[in-house]
Amino acid sequence: MSTPKPPVRPPGERTRTRRPGRPSGDGRDQRERLLDAALAHYADHGVAASRLRAIATAAGVTPAMISYYFGGKAALLEAVIEERLLPVVGEIRGHLEGRDNDAGALVEGFVGGMHATIERHPWLPRLWVREVLSEGGALRELLVNRIAEQIPRRLAAAFAQAQQSGRLNPDLDPRLLVVSLVGLTLFPLAAAPLWQQVFDSDDLDTTALQHHTLALLTRGLETDHAP
Amino acid sequence: MSTPKPPVRPPGERTRTRRPGRPSGDGRDQRERLLDAALAHYADHGVAASRLRAIATAAGVTPAMISYYFGGKAALLEAVIEERLLPVVGEIRGHLEGRDNDAGALVEGFVGGMHATIERHPWLPRLWVREVLSEGGALRELLVNRIAEQIPRRLAAAFAQAQQSGRLNPDLDPRLLVVSLVGLTLFPLAAAPLWQQVFDSDDLDTTALQHHTLALLTRGLETDHAP
Repeated sequence: MSTPKPPVRPPGERTRTRRPGRPSGDGRDQRERLLDAALAHYADHGVAASRLRAIATAAGVTPAMISYYFGGKAALLEAVIEERLLPVVGEIRGHLEGRDNDAGALVEGFVGGMHATIERHPWLPRLWVREVLSEGGALRELLVNRIAEQIPRRLAAAFAQAQQSGRLNPDLDPRLLVVSLVGLTLFPLAAAPLWQQVFDSDDLDTTALQHHTLALLTRGLETDHAP
Repeated sequence: MSTPKPPVRPPGERTRTRRPGRPSGDGRDQRERLLDAALAHYADHGVAASRLRAIATAAGVTPAMISYYFGGKAALLEAVIEERLLPVVGEIRGHLEGRDNDAGALVEGFVGGMHATIERHPWLPRLWVREVLSEGGALRELLVNRIAEQIPRRLAAAFAQAQQSGRLNPDLDPRLLVVSLVGLTLFPLAAAPLWQQVFDSDDLDTTALQHHTLALLTRGLETDHAP
Protein backbone atom coordinates (compact mmCIF):
# COMPACT_ATOMS: atom_id res chain seq x y z
CA MET A 1 0.00 0.00 0.00
CA SER A 2 2.54 2.59 1.14
CA THR A 3 5.80 1.28 -0.31
CA PRO A 4 8.14 4.26 0.09
CA LYS A 5 8.89 4.89 -3.59
CA PRO A 6 10.41 8.27 -4.31
CA PRO A 7 7.57 10.41 -5.69
CA VAL A 8 7.95 12.49 -8.80
CA ARG A 9 9.52 15.57 -7.31
CA PRO A 10 8.54 18.96 -8.68
CA PRO A 11 11.02 21.74 -8.02
CA GLY A 12 10.20 23.50 -4.75
CA GLU A 13 9.61 22.78 -1.11
CA ARG A 14 10.34 19.08 -1.17
CA THR A 15 13.98 19.66 -1.96
CA ARG A 16 14.44 22.42 0.62
CA THR A 17 15.71 21.75 4.10
CA ARG A 18 12.95 22.10 6.66
CA ARG A 19 11.99 20.56 9.97
CA PRO A 20 9.58 17.63 9.43
CA GLY A 21 5.91 18.36 10.12
CA ARG A 22 6.36 22.10 9.88
CA PRO A 23 5.51 24.11 6.77
CA SER A 24 8.33 26.07 5.23
CA GLY A 25 8.21 29.84 4.81
CA ASP A 26 5.72 30.02 1.97
CA GLY A 27 2.98 28.28 3.97
CA ARG A 28 0.16 30.27 2.43
CA ASP A 29 1.37 29.33 -1.03
CA GLN A 30 1.61 25.62 -0.10
CA ARG A 31 -1.91 25.66 1.29
CA GLU A 32 -3.29 27.29 -1.87
CA ARG A 33 -1.41 24.80 -4.04
CA LEU A 34 -2.90 21.93 -2.02
CA LEU A 35 -6.42 23.31 -2.57
CA ASP A 36 -5.78 23.62 -6.32
CA ALA A 37 -4.30 20.13 -6.52
CA ALA A 38 -7.21 18.63 -4.55
CA LEU A 39 -9.74 20.35 -6.79
CA ALA A 40 -7.99 19.06 -9.93
CA HIS A 41 -7.91 15.52 -8.51
CA TYR A 42 -11.58 15.68 -7.53
CA ALA A 43 -12.52 16.75 -11.07
CA ASP A 44 -10.32 14.17 -12.80
CA HIS A 45 -10.73 11.13 -10.54
CA GLY A 46 -13.70 11.86 -8.30
CA VAL A 47 -13.57 12.82 -4.61
CA ALA A 48 -13.69 9.24 -3.28
CA ALA A 49 -10.91 8.02 -5.58
CA SER A 50 -8.58 10.96 -4.88
CA ARG A 51 -5.57 9.91 -2.79
CA LEU A 52 -4.03 12.37 -0.33
CA ARG A 53 -0.56 11.19 -1.34
CA ALA A 54 -1.23 11.99 -5.00
CA ILE A 55 -2.69 15.39 -4.12
CA ALA A 56 0.37 16.20 -2.00
CA THR A 57 2.72 15.10 -4.78
CA ALA A 58 0.88 17.26 -7.30
CA ALA A 59 1.19 20.21 -4.93
CA GLY A 60 4.89 19.54 -4.38
CA VAL A 61 4.61 18.94 -0.65
CA THR A 62 4.64 15.91 1.67
CA PRO A 63 1.34 14.21 2.66
CA ALA A 64 2.01 15.40 6.22
CA MET A 65 1.36 18.95 5.02
CA ILE A 66 -2.29 18.00 4.34
CA SER A 67 -2.68 17.00 7.98
CA TYR A 68 -0.86 20.15 9.04
CA TYR A 69 -3.03 22.56 7.05
CA PHE A 70 -6.38 20.78 6.99
CA GLY A 71 -6.41 17.89 9.44
CA GLY A 72 -7.51 15.20 7.01
CA LYS A 73 -9.41 14.10 3.95
CA ALA A 74 -12.88 15.34 4.95
CA ALA A 75 -11.56 18.70 6.11
CA LEU A 76 -9.61 19.13 2.87
CA LEU A 77 -12.85 18.61 0.90
CA GLU A 78 -14.63 21.10 3.14
CA ALA A 79 -11.87 23.67 2.55
CA VAL A 80 -12.06 23.12 -1.23
CA ILE A 81 -15.83 23.69 -1.03
CA GLU A 82 -15.47 26.90 1.01
CA GLU A 83 -12.48 28.39 -0.77
CA ARG A 84 -12.81 27.11 -4.32
CA LEU A 85 -16.39 26.00 -5.11
CA LEU A 86 -18.56 28.51 -3.28
CA PRO A 87 -16.59 31.49 -4.69
CA VAL A 88 -17.31 30.11 -8.18
CA VAL A 89 -21.02 29.89 -7.29
CA GLY A 90 -20.68 33.52 -6.23
CA GLU A 91 -19.22 34.40 -9.63
CA ILE A 92 -22.20 32.86 -11.42
CA ARG A 93 -24.58 34.65 -9.05
CA GLY A 94 -22.80 37.90 -9.86
CA HIS A 95 -23.92 37.57 -13.49
CA LEU A 96 -27.55 37.68 -12.32
CA GLU A 97 -27.26 40.88 -10.26
CA GLY A 98 -29.79 43.60 -11.05
CA ARG A 99 -31.76 41.40 -13.45
CA ASP A 100 -34.39 39.97 -11.07
CA ASN A 101 -37.26 41.81 -12.68
CA ASP A 102 -36.60 40.71 -16.25
CA ALA A 103 -36.86 37.00 -17.12
CA GLY A 104 -35.16 37.46 -20.50
CA ALA A 105 -32.25 39.35 -18.93
CA LEU A 106 -31.92 36.69 -16.21
CA VAL A 107 -31.76 33.95 -18.85
CA GLU A 108 -29.12 35.90 -20.78
CA GLY A 109 -27.20 36.56 -17.58
CA PHE A 110 -27.28 32.89 -16.61
CA VAL A 111 -26.22 31.58 -20.04
CA GLY A 112 -23.46 34.19 -20.42
CA GLY A 113 -22.43 33.76 -16.79
CA MET A 114 -22.11 29.97 -17.05
CA HIS A 115 -20.02 30.29 -20.20
CA ALA A 116 -17.74 32.96 -18.70
CA THR A 117 -17.37 31.07 -15.42
CA ILE A 118 -16.55 27.74 -17.08
CA GLU A 119 -14.02 29.46 -19.33
CA ARG A 120 -12.28 30.70 -16.17
CA HIS A 121 -12.70 27.37 -14.34
CA PRO A 122 -12.65 24.58 -16.95
CA TRP A 123 -12.77 21.84 -14.28
CA LEU A 124 -16.33 22.79 -13.31
CA PRO A 125 -18.33 20.66 -15.80
CA ARG A 126 -16.22 17.55 -15.10
CA LEU A 127 -16.62 17.94 -11.34
CA TRP A 128 -20.36 18.54 -11.76
CA VAL A 129 -20.86 15.32 -13.78
CA ARG A 130 -18.87 13.24 -11.31
CA GLU A 131 -19.98 14.62 -7.97
CA VAL A 132 -23.38 16.27 -8.51
CA LEU A 133 -25.07 14.53 -11.43
CA SER A 134 -23.85 10.99 -10.65
CA GLU A 135 -25.84 9.13 -8.01
CA GLY A 136 -23.88 8.99 -4.76
CA GLY A 137 -21.84 12.06 -5.78
CA ALA A 138 -19.99 13.83 -2.96
CA LEU A 139 -21.40 17.28 -3.74
CA ARG A 140 -25.14 16.57 -4.09
CA GLU A 141 -25.84 17.73 -0.54
CA LEU A 142 -23.88 20.91 -1.24
CA LEU A 143 -26.18 21.71 -4.16
CA VAL A 144 -29.37 21.00 -2.24
CA ASN A 145 -28.37 22.65 1.04
CA ARG A 146 -26.16 25.58 0.10
CA ILE A 147 -26.33 26.37 -3.63
CA ALA A 148 -30.07 25.86 -4.27
CA GLU A 149 -31.01 29.01 -2.36
CA GLN A 150 -28.38 31.16 -4.07
CA ILE A 151 -29.22 30.41 -7.70
CA PRO A 152 -31.89 27.81 -8.69
CA ARG A 153 -34.66 28.79 -6.27
CA ARG A 154 -33.99 32.47 -6.78
CA LEU A 155 -34.24 32.08 -10.57
CA ALA A 156 -37.42 30.01 -10.29
CA ALA A 157 -39.05 32.67 -8.09
CA ALA A 158 -38.16 35.42 -10.56
CA PHE A 159 -39.51 33.33 -13.49
CA ALA A 160 -42.75 32.64 -11.59
CA GLN A 161 -43.23 36.34 -11.01
CA ALA A 162 -42.52 37.21 -14.65
CA GLN A 163 -45.05 34.59 -15.70
CA GLN A 164 -47.71 35.96 -13.35
CA SER A 165 -47.20 39.39 -14.90
CA GLY A 166 -47.61 37.92 -18.39
CA ARG A 167 -43.95 38.43 -19.31
CA LEU A 168 -43.03 34.76 -19.80
CA ASN A 169 -44.45 31.94 -21.96
CA PRO A 170 -47.35 30.66 -19.79
CA ASP A 171 -46.78 27.04 -20.88
CA LEU A 172 -43.38 26.88 -19.18
CA ASP A 173 -42.85 25.70 -15.61
CA PRO A 174 -40.69 28.31 -13.79
CA ARG A 175 -38.81 25.59 -11.84
CA LEU A 176 -38.26 23.36 -14.86
CA LEU A 177 -37.01 26.39 -16.79
CA VAL A 178 -34.07 26.44 -14.35
CA VAL A 179 -33.45 22.75 -15.08
CA SER A 180 -33.63 23.51 -18.82
CA LEU A 181 -31.06 26.29 -18.42
CA VAL A 182 -28.62 23.89 -16.76
CA GLY A 183 -29.28 21.33 -19.51
CA LEU A 184 -28.48 23.97 -22.12
CA THR A 185 -25.25 25.26 -20.49
CA LEU A 186 -23.46 22.97 -18.04
CA PHE A 187 -24.49 19.81 -19.90
CA PRO A 188 -23.31 20.80 -23.42
CA LEU A 189 -20.08 22.21 -21.99
CA ALA A 190 -19.48 18.95 -20.08
CA ALA A 191 -20.30 16.91 -23.19
CA ALA A 192 -18.28 19.03 -25.64
CA PRO A 193 -15.53 16.41 -26.22
CA LEU A 194 -18.28 13.92 -27.13
CA TRP A 195 -20.36 15.99 -29.56
CA GLN A 196 -17.23 17.39 -31.18
CA GLN A 197 -16.39 13.76 -32.04
CA VAL A 198 -19.95 12.81 -33.00
CA PHE A 199 -20.28 15.74 -35.40
CA ASP A 200 -16.59 16.10 -36.27
CA SER A 201 -17.24 19.73 -35.39
CA ASP A 202 -14.07 21.48 -34.32
CA ASP A 203 -15.56 24.56 -35.99
CA LEU A 204 -18.14 24.88 -33.21
CA ASP A 205 -16.71 26.79 -30.27
CA THR A 206 -18.36 28.03 -27.10
CA THR A 207 -19.27 31.33 -28.78
CA ALA A 208 -21.30 29.39 -31.36
CA LEU A 209 -22.89 27.36 -28.56
CA GLN A 210 -23.86 30.49 -26.64
CA HIS A 211 -25.38 32.11 -29.76
CA HIS A 212 -27.33 28.94 -30.58
CA THR A 213 -28.57 28.53 -27.01
CA LEU A 214 -29.86 32.09 -26.71
CA ALA A 215 -31.57 31.79 -30.11
CA LEU A 216 -33.30 28.60 -28.96
CA LEU A 217 -34.36 30.05 -25.62
CA THR A 218 -35.59 33.30 -27.07
CA ARG A 219 -37.52 32.07 -30.08
CA GLY A 220 -37.54 28.28 -30.02
CA LEU A 221 -37.69 26.49 -33.35
CA GLU A 222 -39.76 29.22 -35.06
CA THR A 223 -38.54 30.57 -38.37
CA ASP A 224 -39.76 34.06 -37.56
CA HIS A 225 -41.62 35.91 -34.88
CA ALA A 226 -43.63 39.05 -34.46
CA PRO A 227 -42.19 41.39 -31.82
CA MET B 1 -10.03 -11.48 -2.36
CA SER B 2 -12.06 -14.66 -2.95
CA THR B 3 -12.84 -15.82 0.59
CA PRO B 4 -15.60 -18.40 0.01
CA LYS B 5 -18.37 -16.74 2.02
CA PRO B 6 -21.85 -18.10 1.26
CA PRO B 7 -23.50 -15.53 -1.03
CA VAL B 8 -27.00 -14.25 -0.43
CA ARG B 9 -28.98 -16.99 -2.15
CA PRO B 10 -32.09 -16.09 -4.10
CA PRO B 11 -34.53 -18.92 -4.65
CA GLY B 12 -33.77 -20.75 -7.87
CA GLU B 13 -30.96 -22.55 -9.65
CA ARG B 14 -28.34 -22.23 -6.92
CA THR B 15 -30.32 -24.58 -4.68
CA ARG B 16 -31.00 -27.14 -7.39
CA THR B 17 -28.78 -30.12 -7.96
CA ARG B 18 -26.72 -29.80 -11.12
CA ARG B 19 -23.35 -30.78 -12.41
CA PRO B 20 -20.78 -28.02 -11.83
CA GLY B 21 -19.86 -25.94 -14.89
CA ARG B 22 -22.99 -26.93 -16.80
CA PRO B 23 -26.10 -24.78 -16.96
CA SER B 24 -29.31 -26.29 -15.68
CA GLY B 25 -32.34 -26.80 -17.91
CA ASP B 26 -33.47 -23.18 -18.16
CA GLY B 27 -30.24 -22.01 -19.73
CA ARG B 28 -31.85 -19.35 -21.86
CA ASP B 29 -33.54 -17.90 -18.80
CA GLN B 30 -30.26 -17.85 -16.82
CA ARG B 31 -28.48 -16.09 -19.64
CA GLU B 32 -31.19 -13.41 -19.87
CA ARG B 33 -31.12 -12.93 -16.11
CA LEU B 34 -27.36 -12.49 -16.23
CA LEU B 35 -27.73 -9.79 -18.90
CA ASP B 36 -30.35 -7.99 -16.81
CA ALA B 37 -28.25 -8.25 -13.64
CA ALA B 38 -25.14 -6.99 -15.46
CA LEU B 39 -27.05 -4.03 -16.89
CA ALA B 40 -28.43 -3.13 -13.44
CA HIS B 41 -24.94 -3.33 -11.92
CA TYR B 42 -23.44 -1.20 -14.70
CA ALA B 43 -26.08 1.47 -14.12
CA ASP B 44 -25.77 1.43 -10.33
CA HIS B 45 -22.03 0.96 -9.83
CA GLY B 46 -20.42 1.64 -13.19
CA VAL B 47 -18.98 -0.93 -15.60
CA ALA B 48 -15.46 -0.93 -14.12
CA ALA B 49 -16.69 -1.35 -10.53
CA SER B 50 -19.16 -4.16 -11.33
CA ARG B 51 -17.97 -7.50 -9.94
CA LEU B 52 -18.79 -10.71 -11.82
CA ARG B 53 -19.48 -12.44 -8.50
CA ALA B 54 -22.08 -9.81 -7.53
CA ILE B 55 -23.71 -9.98 -10.97
CA ALA B 56 -23.93 -13.78 -10.74
CA THR B 57 -25.40 -13.58 -7.23
CA ALA B 58 -28.01 -11.08 -8.38
CA ALA B 59 -28.93 -13.40 -11.25
CA GLY B 60 -29.11 -16.38 -8.89
CA VAL B 61 -26.37 -18.38 -10.59
CA THR B 62 -22.73 -19.21 -9.89
CA PRO B 63 -19.93 -16.98 -11.28
CA ALA B 64 -18.90 -19.96 -13.44
CA MET B 65 -22.11 -19.46 -15.42
CA ILE B 66 -20.78 -16.10 -16.66
CA SER B 67 -17.75 -17.86 -18.12
CA TYR B 68 -20.01 -20.55 -19.54
CA TYR B 69 -22.41 -18.18 -21.32
CA PHE B 70 -20.16 -15.24 -22.17
CA GLY B 71 -16.52 -16.16 -21.64
CA GLY B 72 -15.62 -13.25 -19.39
CA LYS B 73 -16.07 -9.67 -18.29
CA ALA B 74 -15.41 -7.94 -21.64
CA ALA B 75 -17.65 -10.37 -23.53
CA LEU B 76 -20.44 -9.90 -20.97
CA LEU B 77 -20.31 -6.13 -21.57
CA GLU B 78 -20.36 -6.70 -25.33
CA ALA B 79 -23.43 -8.96 -24.97
CA VAL B 80 -25.20 -6.33 -22.83
CA ILE B 81 -24.45 -3.74 -25.53
CA GLU B 82 -25.75 -5.95 -28.34
CA GLU B 83 -28.78 -7.41 -26.58
CA ARG B 84 -29.84 -4.67 -24.17
CA LEU B 85 -28.46 -1.25 -25.20
CA LEU B 86 -28.66 -1.29 -28.99
CA PRO B 87 -32.29 -2.51 -28.95
CA VAL B 88 -33.12 0.51 -26.74
CA VAL B 89 -31.39 2.78 -29.25
CA GLY B 90 -33.59 1.13 -31.86
CA GLU B 91 -36.67 1.97 -29.79
CA ILE B 92 -35.73 5.65 -29.70
CA ARG B 93 -35.02 5.59 -33.44
CA GLY B 94 -38.46 4.09 -33.98
CA HIS B 95 -40.04 7.24 -32.59
CA LEU B 96 -38.41 9.25 -35.41
CA GLU B 97 -39.69 7.09 -38.28
CA GLY B 98 -41.51 8.92 -41.05
CA ARG B 99 -40.70 12.37 -39.64
CA ASP B 100 -37.48 13.16 -41.53
CA ASN B 101 -39.01 15.96 -43.55
CA ASP B 102 -40.48 17.91 -40.64
CA ALA B 103 -38.12 19.40 -38.05
CA GLY B 104 -40.94 20.12 -35.59
CA ALA B 105 -42.26 16.56 -35.85
CA LEU B 106 -38.74 15.17 -35.39
CA VAL B 107 -38.27 17.25 -32.25
CA GLU B 108 -41.62 16.07 -30.90
CA GLY B 109 -40.77 12.48 -31.81
CA PHE B 110 -37.41 12.70 -30.07
CA VAL B 111 -38.74 14.30 -26.88
CA GLY B 112 -41.71 11.92 -26.67
CA GLY B 113 -39.54 8.97 -27.65
CA MET B 114 -36.91 9.66 -24.98
CA HIS B 115 -39.60 10.00 -22.32
CA ALA B 116 -41.37 6.79 -23.39
CA THR B 117 -38.11 4.86 -23.68
CA ILE B 118 -36.81 5.96 -20.28
CA GLU B 119 -40.15 5.09 -18.69
CA ARG B 120 -39.70 1.56 -20.06
CA HIS B 121 -35.98 1.45 -19.17
CA PRO B 122 -35.44 3.60 -16.07
CA TRP B 123 -31.76 2.59 -15.79
CA LEU B 124 -30.90 4.48 -19.00
CA PRO B 125 -30.20 7.99 -17.57
CA ARG B 126 -28.02 6.60 -14.75
CA LEU B 127 -25.99 4.49 -17.15
CA TRP B 128 -25.64 7.44 -19.54
CA VAL B 129 -24.26 9.74 -16.79
CA ARG B 130 -21.78 7.13 -15.58
CA GLU B 131 -20.54 5.62 -18.81
CA VAL B 132 -21.16 8.17 -21.57
CA LEU B 133 -21.09 11.63 -20.00
CA SER B 134 -18.29 10.94 -17.46
CA GLU B 135 -14.77 11.18 -18.83
CA GLY B 136 -13.29 7.71 -19.25
CA GLY B 137 -16.79 6.17 -19.43
CA ALA B 138 -16.97 2.66 -20.88
CA LEU B 139 -19.66 3.50 -23.47
CA ARG B 140 -18.27 6.67 -25.05
CA GLU B 141 -16.85 4.75 -28.01
CA LEU B 142 -20.21 3.06 -28.47
CA LEU B 143 -21.90 6.45 -28.83
CA VAL B 144 -19.33 7.81 -31.26
CA ASN B 145 -18.91 4.66 -33.37
CA ARG B 146 -22.31 2.99 -33.39
CA ILE B 147 -25.06 5.27 -32.09
CA ALA B 148 -24.00 8.59 -33.66
CA GLU B 149 -24.99 7.47 -37.15
CA GLN B 150 -28.37 6.10 -36.05
CA ILE B 151 -29.72 9.16 -34.24
CA PRO B 152 -27.60 12.31 -33.69
CA ARG B 153 -26.10 12.69 -37.19
CA ARG B 154 -29.38 11.75 -38.82
CA LEU B 155 -31.27 14.37 -36.79
CA ALA B 156 -28.63 17.03 -37.51
CA ALA B 157 -28.88 16.34 -41.26
CA ALA B 158 -32.68 16.66 -41.18
CA PHE B 159 -32.45 19.90 -39.18
CA ALA B 160 -29.89 21.32 -41.65
CA GLN B 161 -32.21 20.55 -44.54
CA ALA B 162 -35.21 22.11 -42.78
CA GLN B 163 -33.14 25.21 -42.13
CA GLN B 164 -32.05 25.46 -45.76
CA SER B 165 -35.70 25.35 -46.80
CA GLY B 166 -36.55 28.13 -44.32
CA ARG B 167 -38.50 25.84 -42.00
CA LEU B 168 -36.28 26.20 -38.92
CA ASN B 169 -35.02 29.20 -36.90
CA PRO B 170 -31.96 30.30 -38.93
CA ASP B 171 -30.01 31.30 -35.79
CA LEU B 172 -29.86 27.71 -34.55
CA ASP B 173 -27.00 25.34 -35.33
CA PRO B 174 -28.49 22.04 -36.60
CA ARG B 175 -25.84 19.96 -34.82
CA LEU B 176 -26.07 21.88 -31.55
CA LEU B 177 -29.85 21.51 -31.70
CA VAL B 178 -29.29 17.76 -31.25
CA VAL B 179 -27.10 18.50 -28.20
CA SER B 180 -29.84 20.82 -26.88
CA LEU B 181 -32.43 18.05 -27.29
CA VAL B 182 -30.32 15.67 -25.19
CA GLY B 183 -29.81 18.41 -22.59
CA LEU B 184 -33.59 18.89 -22.42
CA THR B 185 -34.51 15.18 -22.15
CA LEU B 186 -31.83 12.76 -20.92
CA PHE B 187 -30.26 15.35 -18.61
CA PRO B 188 -33.41 16.44 -16.71
CA LEU B 189 -34.54 12.82 -16.41
CA ALA B 190 -31.13 11.86 -15.00
CA ALA B 191 -31.18 14.83 -12.62
CA ALA B 192 -34.81 14.39 -11.50
CA PRO B 193 -33.95 13.22 -7.93
CA LEU B 194 -31.84 16.38 -7.55
CA TRP B 195 -34.26 19.02 -8.81
CA GLN B 196 -37.15 17.39 -7.01
CA GLN B 197 -35.16 18.03 -3.81
CA VAL B 198 -34.00 21.51 -4.84
CA PHE B 199 -37.54 22.66 -5.61
CA ASP B 200 -39.37 20.32 -3.22
CA SER B 201 -41.42 19.50 -6.31
CA ASP B 202 -42.99 16.09 -6.06
CA ASP B 203 -45.89 17.63 -8.00
CA LEU B 204 -43.74 17.77 -11.16
CA ASP B 205 -43.86 14.48 -13.02
CA THR B 206 -42.45 13.51 -16.40
CA THR B 207 -45.68 14.55 -18.13
CA ALA B 208 -45.18 18.09 -16.79
CA LEU B 209 -41.54 17.97 -17.91
CA GLN B 210 -42.50 16.87 -21.42
CA HIS B 211 -45.13 19.62 -21.71
CA HIS B 212 -42.67 22.26 -20.49
CA THR B 213 -39.90 21.05 -22.80
CA LEU B 214 -42.05 21.11 -25.93
CA ALA B 215 -43.35 24.58 -25.00
CA LEU B 216 -39.78 25.83 -24.64
CA LEU B 217 -38.59 24.25 -27.87
CA THR B 218 -41.58 25.42 -29.89
CA ARG B 219 -41.88 29.00 -28.71
CA GLY B 220 -38.98 29.75 -26.40
CA LEU B 221 -39.54 32.31 -23.66
CA GLU B 222 -42.02 34.37 -25.71
CA THR B 223 -45.34 35.22 -24.15
CA ASP B 224 -47.11 34.96 -27.47
CA HIS B 225 -46.34 34.36 -31.10
CA ALA B 226 -47.79 35.06 -34.50
CA PRO B 227 -48.42 31.89 -36.50
